[in-house]
Amino acid sequence: MMSGDFFFRNKIPVAILGATGCVGQKFVQLLSKHPWFEIFALCASEKSAGKTYQEAVHWTLPTPIPDEVKQMQVLTCETSLDCQLVFSALDSSIAGFIETRFAEAGHLVISNSRNHRMEANVPLVIGEVNPEHLELAKSQPFQRGMIITNPNCSVIGMVMALKPLMPLGIDAVHVVTMQAISGAGYPGVASLDINDNIIPFIKGEEGKLESEPLKILGDLQGTTLQPASIKISAQCNRVPIIDGHVACLSIKLNGSASPETIIQAWREFSGEPQKFQLPSAPLHPIYYFDDPFYPQPRFHRLLDKEMAVSIGRLRPCSLMDYKFTLLSHNMTRGAAGSALLNAELLVKKGWVYWS
Amino acid sequence: MMSGDFFFRNKIPVAILGATGCVGQKFVQLLSKHPWFEIFALCASEKSAGKTYQEAVHWTLPTPIPDEVKQMQVLTCETSLDCQLVFSALDSSIAGFIETRFAEAGHLVISNSRNHRMEANVPLVIGEVNPEHLELAKSQPFQRGMIITNPNCSVIGMVMALKPLMPLGIDAVHVVTMQAISGAGYPGVASLDINDNIIPFIKGEEGKLESEPLKILGDLQGTTLQPASIKISAQCNRVPIIDGHVACLSIKLNGSASPETIIQAWREFSGEPQKFQLPSAPLHPIYYFDDPFYPQPRFHRLLDKEMAVSIGRLRPCSLMDYKFTLLSHNMTRGAAGSALLNAELLVKKGWVYWS
Amino acid sequence: MMSGDFFFRNKIPVAILGATGCVGQKFVQLLSKHPWFEIFALCASEKSAGKTYQEAVHWTLPTPIPDEVKQMQVLTCETSLDCQLVFSALDSSIAGFIETRFAEAGHLVISNSRNHRMEANVPLVIGEVNPEHLELAKSQPFQRGMIITNPNCSVIGMVMALKPLMPLGIDAVHVVTMQAISGAGYPGVASLDINDNIIPFIKGEEGKLESEPLKILGDLQGTTLQPASIKISAQCNRVPIIDGHVACLSIKLNGSASPETIIQAWREFSGEPQKFQLPSAPLHPIYYFDDPFYPQPRFHRLLDKEMAVSIGRLRPCSLMDYKFTLLSHNMTRGAAGSALLNAELLVKKGWVYWS
Amino acid sequence: MMSGDFFFRNKIPVAILGATGCVGQKFVQLLSKHPWFEIFALCASEKSAGKTYQEAVHWTLPTPIPDEVKQMQVLTCETSLDCQLVFSALDSSIAGFIETRFAEAGHLVISNSRNHRMEANVPLVIGEVNPEHLELAKSQPFQRGMIITNPNCSVIGMVMALKPLMPLGIDAVHVVTMQAISGAGYPGVASLDINDNIIPFIKGEEGKLESEPLKILGDLQGTTLQPASIKISAQCNRVPIIDGHVACLSIKLNGSASPETIIQAWREFSGEPQKFQLPSAPLHPIYYFDDPFYPQPRFHRLLDKEMAVSIGRLRPCSLMDYKFTLLSHNMTRGAAGSALLNAELLVKKGWVYWS
Repeated sequence: MMSGDFFFRNKIPVAILGATGCVGQKFVQLLSKHPWFEIFALCASEKSAGKTYQEAVHWTLPTPIPDEVKQMQVLTCETSLDCQLVFSALDSSIAGFIETRFAEAGHLVISNSRNHRMEANVPLVIGEVNPEHLELAKSQPFQRGMIITNPNCSVIGMVMALKPLMPLGIDAVHVVTMQAISGAGYPGVASLDINDNIIPFIKGEEGKLESEPLKILGDLQGTTLQPASIKISAQCNRVPIIDGHVACLSIKLNGSASPETIIQAWREFSGEPQKFQLPSAPLHPIYYFDDPFYPQPRFHRLLDKEMAVSIGRLRPCSLMDYKFTLLSHNMTRGAAGSALLNAELLVKKGWVYWS
Repeated sequence: MMSGDFFFRNKIPVAILGATGCVGQKFVQLLSKHPWFEIFALCASEKSAGKTYQEAVHWTLPTPIPDEVKQMQVLTCETSLDCQLVFSALDSSIAGFIETRFAEAGHLVISNSRNHRMEANVPLVIGEVNPEHLELAKSQPFQRGMIITNPNCSVIGMVMALKPLMPLGIDAVHVVTMQAISGAGYPGVASLDINDNIIPFIKGEEGKLESEPLKILGDLQGTTLQPASIKISAQCNRVPIIDGHVACLSIKLNGSASPETIIQAWREFSGEPQKFQLPSAPLHPIYYFDDPFYPQPRFHRLLDKEMAVSIGRLRPCSLMDYKFTLLSHNMTRGAAGSALLNAELLVKKGWVYWS
Repeated sequence: MMSGDFFFRNKIPVAILGATGCVGQKFVQLLSKHPWFEIFALCASEKSAGKTYQEAVHWTLPTPIPDEVKQMQVLTCETSLDCQLVFSALDSSIAGFIETRFAEAGHLVISNSRNHRMEANVPLVIGEVNPEHLELAKSQPFQRGMIITNPNCSVIGMVMALKPLMPLGIDAVHVVTMQAISGAGYPGVASLDINDNIIPFIKGEEGKLESEPLKILGDLQGTTLQPASIKISAQCNRVPIIDGHVACLSIKLNGSASPETIIQAWREFSGEPQKFQLPSAPLHPIYYFDDPFYPQPRFHRLLDKEMAVSIGRLRPCSLMDYKFTLLSHNMTRGAAGSALLNAELLVKKGWVYWS
Repeated sequence: MMSGDFFFRNKIPVAILGATGCVGQKFVQLLSKHPWFEIFALCASEKSAGKTYQEAVHWTLPTPIPDEVKQMQVLTCETSLDCQLVFSALDSSIAGFIETRFAEAGHLVISNSRNHRMEANVPLVIGEVNPEHLELAKSQPFQRGMIITNPNCSVIGMVMALKPLMPLGIDAVHVVTMQAISGAGYPGVASLDINDNIIPFIKGEEGKLESEPLKILGDLQGTTLQPASIKISAQCNRVPIIDGHVACLSIKLNGSASPETIIQAWREFSGEPQKFQLPSAPLHPIYYFDDPFYPQPRFHRLLDKEMAVSIGRLRPCSLMDYKFTLLSHNMTRGAAGSALLNAELLVKKGWVYWS
């Protein structure tokens, strides 16, 4: 059975690679109550394999391990899984190789890892921003398999804020981030390093913020992608908050636009996930707050299924045109949730088949 | 007796206005072991007056209240004090009026408050940056009194980093701050507002960062000050750290300069406080770190008597010319310590007299 | 219409006194989606009255202000409200007087405030522990009104852990608490007082932990309550966590009991809220964890609608008999949630009438 | 030359084993400006050996790495060191074996590790409490070497509070600790585990609190130690503060004593370190605070060279006799500082020789 305008008799079985890590746990949490998908296999490293999920995982989310996965036996990342759809939350030290192997074996790999993101025929997709880029995957050299990626946790919020402004013409973006500790995984940041402290450097992060948006906001012309020509400069900091990445942006437009125009563009922004009412889609991708003290991680990261981007403080910038602050949940909107949204899009497009 | 090349038989008596607040406490801490000054009077609001200092203060510093002030009786902010030198840590809601009254009564007011900072004949001075601006005070309309101010806590670190680069020609500065909770005074920020959170707005702060540096870095031509022509854009955030303001800067130069030139300029930077070996002067005003993970508030805010500015991560900026991160202790270098340095300069210049 | 085995055509209108405070906000959050109740009036101080709720409140919960109350006009705490059921989250400085006035005017006052708790004919009730004490209220001197209270936030978790052990005979309890900052209300604890710190004293708290449990665990004999004869010694600390009170207990039993017996008693514990399947009742009032690292506030405070008590580490105590650690959500189980459960019990018992 | 009433021409060379760990760093910090000792060798694991100290260490203290050790080459823990005095901050997984080897090679090993603490002829010493126990070391089976230990970080503060009360007769002690993250070393506690959280279990810790005090407070009768007969029950928690262990104690005395007697005993407490005015000795080993909100880690851990124990809130306990709260700096008084004090005592006693 092929989907499209579908009706589920059975849920679609999915596997999670790297299921014991922080992002893997978020996948487990989001998939455990998903209307379309059900967890079929949890895969992790050799040292976890053979244990029950409960034994293998050091759970770091504030809601309990879902009952139905507690006793599932963790598998290694072998490719003999009997399910088409595979979510990857693998560490980048191994993700590249394993994901390729899964695609070669015919799986549809929805990856949150950075390894394949910038490859020419690998879509780097945010559901609301560039779903048309999924087409790129058709030129991948696999028989039936594919690799679809979503951007870095800090990139997603930023690009979602920029997308509605693209018609205004964006010339340049200056961004300074304050990123939560959960973004570094587990054990990740030692408490002695971050409590009462700021770390002004996150390895590799600034490069991603300066390159990934160009691909995501690029134009698909036939089978090739023309990257957006926006100049971006990024500075990234780790701060002592648990979840929620905050970014201070300044933007330079090609033309001129009133603050009202910009705020309206944000508030009216909507994409395919909203049109198709995908299960993981927020009602509104962007919330703009008039209160100058907003957005704040502790108060807005949970907004709209943790899938919304919160923006506030739009005001003129004396160097560029405008400045503003944005926030998104780095684990959900910034990672597992956006990957899941990509999978839901693929179901809707009929790329996922099940019996 | 008038000083200059002086020898102290007795210490110089000083008063502290607003002595029970956070900055007032820092003044008390710094002055309690000062080689030149001794605390003569502690002044605060009506509600504290009459109590001993120990009773009146809610002490928030990690070292104990100095023994010698514990039993001092707190006075109101009356101007009948028998000491020339008066430090003001008054709340800006009342500082303007009270400081003026003290200057009229002949006192030399060294103020950390913002009220008079931008007035034409009020020097806004950082000891290492613009000691020559003290001359401005000579045209103040008081008989013998004067008001000398130091900049906002976030401005001081930023301007100290910019000053050594002025010969290179600075065209524009983009700055995003992450500011400590102690900067908001006591009770200041509620724990429910800031724990596991960021507040992306500090009232009035961005305006100060965009205006005060122009005055401080301005040229004194005769008795008038020509402000520097630098374009500045600021974004300020409150973050959950106790002490130490961090700032991410991007700068645009008029000409070109190598990273080595800039780092050398910082490392060799030195001013009158260093030349005169003032008691509160850091050995080096600026420390540049090669480690990309530095500076960090918990590890560098205490550096060199809490009076140094720590800088790291100088690298090219794709929008402007360079970007880097800086840190300074907001209570010492950013407030009471810089005020004290101003007072020490005045002693050295012979503007302070005592018997 | 009187309830019992009821069917709601309309929801029961309720008022919240002290609706802008922290506990008041929790009432708003819990009542906004309640199947039986609907918010009819939000009352607060003179300074809030007349504003919309959104204007008047400084919201401190991580989920947004419910849309339906944002525009409600805040009223003063006058007694002319046209609803029988009134929740009180009033500050104890005024709660005693205002609650009495509401009871005199015929209202059923469900109070979280401490003022009336220890009065002879005021029930101090935890739904699962002593619902029979509600009878005490019948001898209150009001025409139709009544005052029903729930215990202090730290007391509730402790008494829920003790109740299932009462058949074993409890001689003495030693308790040391580590209490969250939200327990102090807003603005409550200043961040400069609690970040990277512990405050070893909470005014009045230890007395409540030593007295309230005796009333709650007492025997109702006719119309008088015989307090339990348990010796309790308490030490209370404020610690830098946002929600969730943790307590380390040691208990001395009159007889002997195996650890298995105790754990079984906890796991099987259930009360009227569970029997009646009240909307706010947790499925299990107590969760016992075998993992020695549990319970932890960040991971278990949300358990079972934030209404469960989590216990772990039962082990012999060399001074008393057993020691263990418990956790409960201080705002929900420890305050608004337990009050709400009391109201639901009253509905079930037919004490609440509506049209 | 042998010391006693000594005069230093040269400082005494010392080595630090485990110099790159958290306690090792504290040794480095304390020894870098020590009037009697100078750092001769820094020893650590194979993976650090050969690097400069600055390269090998992940420095976690708020003051900078002392300049004089930055370029020292780290050595392995070989026993061919040409200095008698060796401080051990080794991890307990290897400390037992390596320390024995050093003692066999004739070194005087001052260890902060737990491995040898409870051995019959190994002194477990707090300078102010039981310096006479040092005699035990004379029956160790080494030629000239010796192993001297200091207690666990939480034990030291507790025993120092109990020692002055020993003449009153202590029957039993109930203790609940709230311990800082630095006590777990580096990387130690992951920020995702402890931020906004409490961990109610520290492996092995409660056993140490229940056993080590009995040895320290025991009577040396000839060459054997009669342990104190005090019943102790301990509960240990990790809390999100950086430095400073807090403990809530209840004590039962054999006889009766007034609060005044107890407070006086604490305030007058003094030992050999004070008598000999040892460089690391606090002026007063114990500070008792009348303010019920004291002691607090952030405000009292730095007291008197970080070597004092702060106590407050003495009040009757309804189960035992008295309860109170104490605080000590876990890294200094609770580890490296107390070890250093032991070494200073040995110098004063003439057990250390140098040329």
